[in-house]
Amino acid sequence: MRALILGGDGFCGWPTSLHFANEGYEVLIVDNLSRRSITDQLSAPSLTPIRPIERRIEAAQNIGNIRFEHCDIATDTDKFKNILAAFEADVIVHFAEQRSAPYSMLNGAARTYTVNNNVSGTNNLFSILVELQQYPHIVHLGTMGVYGYNDDFGEIPEGYLGITVRKTQKDIVIPYPANPGSIYHMTKCMDHTLMQFYAKNWGFRITDLHQGIVWGTDTDLTASDEDLINRFDYDGEYGTVLNRFISQSQIGHPLTVYGSGGQARAFIHIQDTARCVFLAAESPPEAGAPVQVFNQIAEVHTVGNLAALLHEQTGALIEFQENPRKEAAENSLKVSNQGLCSLGFKPITLADNLLSEVKSTVGKYEGRLNRDAIKSKARW
Amino acid sequence: MRALILGGDGFCGWPTSLHFANEGYEVLIVDNLSRRSITDQLSAPSLTPIRPIERRIEAAQNIGNIRFEHCDIATDTDKFKNILAAFEADVIVHFAEQRSAPYSMLNGAARTYTVNNNVSGTNNLFSILVELQQYPHIVHLGTMGVYGYNDDFGEIPEGYLGITVRKTQKDIVIPYPANPGSIYHMTKCMDHTLMQFYAKNWGFRITDLHQGIVWGTDTDLTASDEDLINRFDYDGEYGTVLNRFISQSQIGHPLTVYGSGGQARAFIHIQDTARCVFLAAESPPEAGAPVQVFNQIAEVHTVGNLAALLHEQTGALIEFQENPRKEAAENSLKVSNQGLCSLGFKPITLADNLLSEVKSTVGKYEGRLNRDAIKSKARW
Repeated sequence: MRALILGGDGFCGWPTSLHFANEGYEVLIVDNLSRRSITDQLSAPSLTPIRPIERRIEAAQNIGNIRFEHCDIATDTDKFKNILAAFEADVIVHFAEQRSAPYSMLNGAARTYTVNNNVSGTNNLFSILVELQQYPHIVHLGTMGVYGYNDDFGEIPEGYLGITVRKTQKDIVIPYPANPGSIYHMTKCMDHTLMQFYAKNWGFRITDLHQGIVWGTDTDLTASDEDLINRFDYDGEYGTVLNRFISQSQIGHPLTVYGSGGQARAFIHIQDTARCVFLAAESPPEAGAPVQVFNQIAEVHTVGNLAALLHEQTGALIEFQENPRKEAAENSLKVSNQGLCSLGFKPITLADNLLSEVKSTVGKYEGRLNRDAIKSKARW
Repeated sequence: MRALILGGDGFCGWPTSLHFANEGYEVLIVDNLSRRSITDQLSAPSLTPIRPIERRIEAAQNIGNIRFEHCDIATDTDKFKNILAAFEADVIVHFAEQRSAPYSMLNGAARTYTVNNNVSGTNNLFSILVELQQYPHIVHLGTMGVYGYNDDFGEIPEGYLGITVRKTQKDIVIPYPANPGSIYHMTKCMDHTLMQFYAKNWGFRITDLHQGIVWGTDTDLTASDEDLINRFDYDGEYGTVLNRFISQSQIGHPLTVYGSGGQARAFIHIQDTARCVFLAAESPPEAGAPVQVFNQIAEVHTVGNLAALLHEQTGALIEFQENPRKEAAENSLKVSNQGLCSLGFKPITLADNLLSEVKSTVGKYEGRLNRDAIKSKARW
C-alpha cells in the first residue's frame, strides 16, 4: 500500500509519516518546508534541533520505506501532477496547510498566504486527481475550530447535525453549520465545502478529521533516534497552549492565560494523532458517500484548569492577560469521538508521566528558547 | 458617494456601473478584462460588438462620472491596495469572479482558475480593507445555485434557515446549508463562509445577493449609445439558458434542452440586476450584523417551459440532449425575494416585448455568431 503524506515534514505530519512506514506502507512525503521558513520569519525555530529533511529521511530507512519530494502543492501544479501520476497513492493524508490560527491573524500577508495556500492546495489536490482519474482515499486534517463554541447544538456530533426544518417540519441531517474563529479555521471550513462538492460530483472517498489541540513532542518512533526527533513549538503563534505552558513553566515565565481561562477546548496527544490518522486512513467511506467526519480528540479541558494543573506541579505563576482573540470568555464543551473509538482508538489522556516527558524535552533544549517569541503578536 | 465596481466591464457589471453613475455616484471600475480574454480562448466573442473599455468609458461621460483601472484583484495585491486606499469607496460591488458554471467544469485549468481567482480575489478585498481600516458596504454577487435544488427546506428563504436542533430541541436560525452544483457555485459558497467571518470579526457590513439566471441584453442606459452596448453571450459555456435559446431560435438551430427540461430555475432580467444591486447598495446591514442575504430573482420557470414558449413563438425545434450536468431531472422551486421587494423592487417578468427586443439584438448581429460555440463542452 502506498501513502502520500502532504505536509509530512511538520509537527503532526512527520510522526504520522513514520507511523505509516512502520506499518509497512510505502510512504512518500511531499512538503514545501514552509513551516521551517516561517519559523525563521518569526525568530522561533523548533525548540528541538530537528534535522534537515534529507537526514530525517536517511534515518527513517531503519523504520521503513520512506521518501521525500520538495513541492509546493498550492503553486507548483505541474510538479504536483507529475508526483501524483507517478506515485499512484492508495491513500493521501493532507496536512499541507498553514495551521496556526494566531499566525493567520497576524497581518495582511499572513491572511493572504493562509487562504491562498490552504484553499488552492486542497483544490489542486482534488482537481489533479480528477484529471488523472485517480481516486485514492483522501484524509484531510480539519480542526475542532470549524464548529465554533456554542451551546445551542448540544454535544458536538461528528460533522453532521440532525435538525427539524421549522417551516416544513421535515427531519433531516445537514452538515454542521460552520462557525470559524480565525482566518485559519475559516480555510478549514472552506476546504470542507470544497470536499463536499468533489465527493458529490466525482465520488471521492474523503475523511475529514476535526482535530483538537495537539500537545506533546515525540512518539515512540520519533523518540527512537535523535535524527528522527519531532519539532516542538513554544512561541505565541505556533506553540499550542499546553506545550506553551510547559515551556513557560520550565524557564520561570508566568503561564500566559488569555482572558479568564474559561475557554474549554479539546486536546489530543501527538502519539494519538499518528494513530488516529492511520485508523481513519484504513477505514474509508463508500465511494459517493458524503465526506466522513471524525472528531479526533481525546479529552476536554479549560485553559484555566491546564494552567492550574501546571501551577500545582511546578509552582509557576499564572498571568491573566487581556484576551487578544475574539471568543467567548467561557464555554461548556462536549464532543463526540465515537467514530475513531469505534475503530479501536483508546485515547491517551493528560497524565503526569507524559507531562514530565515534555518537560524533560523542554529542559534539555531550554538554551535554544527565544523568550521574545513567547508572546503572541496576533490581535483578532 | 463613491462606488467601486469590481468586474465592472462584464455582462452584469457594465450596466450596473452605468446605473450607479446615472444615480450621481462617482464610479470607479476595476477589472482585469479576463472575460474578454476567456472569450477569445473559447472562440465565442460577445455577439454584440462591445467597445474597448477606453471607448466605453469615454462614451459613459455623458451619463456620469465614471473611470477605469486595470487590475487583477486576485493576483495584483499591491496595485489593488493602492486603488482602494486612494478611492475610499462608500460602497464596493464585487462582480470580479469567474461566473460560468460550465466553464468551471471544463478541465483542470478552468477549475484552478475559478477557485484561485474567486476565492483569492474576495479574500484580498476584505484583507486589504482591514489593513486600510476602511469599512465600506460590500455588495457581493452570489448565486441561487448555492442553495442546491432540494425540496426538504420548503420555499428558499434569504440565506438563513429556521431549525429545531433535534437533540437539544432549541429553535435557532442557521446559515442555509450550502449545496453547490459546480466548482463555480462552490466558490460562491466558500466566499459566503469567508464573508461570514470577516463580518463577525471586523464588523464589515456585507450584502450577498443570490442572483438567479440573468437574461436580456441591454438596459435603458446601455441601449442609449452604441458605444455603451452590453455584451451578449450565446455559447455553451457563458450563454445563460434563455439567451442561448433565443440565439438558437434565431439561426434555425434546435433549442438544446439538457435532460427532460424539468429543471426549475429562477430568472431575472439584466435591467433588474442593475436596479437590485443599487437598491441593495443603499441599504446596508448594521455593522457587526451577520451577512445580509437577498435573493435577487424575479420569477421561476422550468427550462422545458422556456423552450416550449420559444417554440410557440418561433417554431424552433426542441432537441432533448443527454444532460451533461449532474442535477435532478426535475425539481420544484419556490424562492423568497421579500428583501429586495421590501426595498421597492418591482420585478420585470418574461414578456413578449422583452423577448422580441433580445431577438432583434440577436438578429442584428447574427453574422457574428460562431455556430461551433453553441454546444457546451463541459461535462460534470
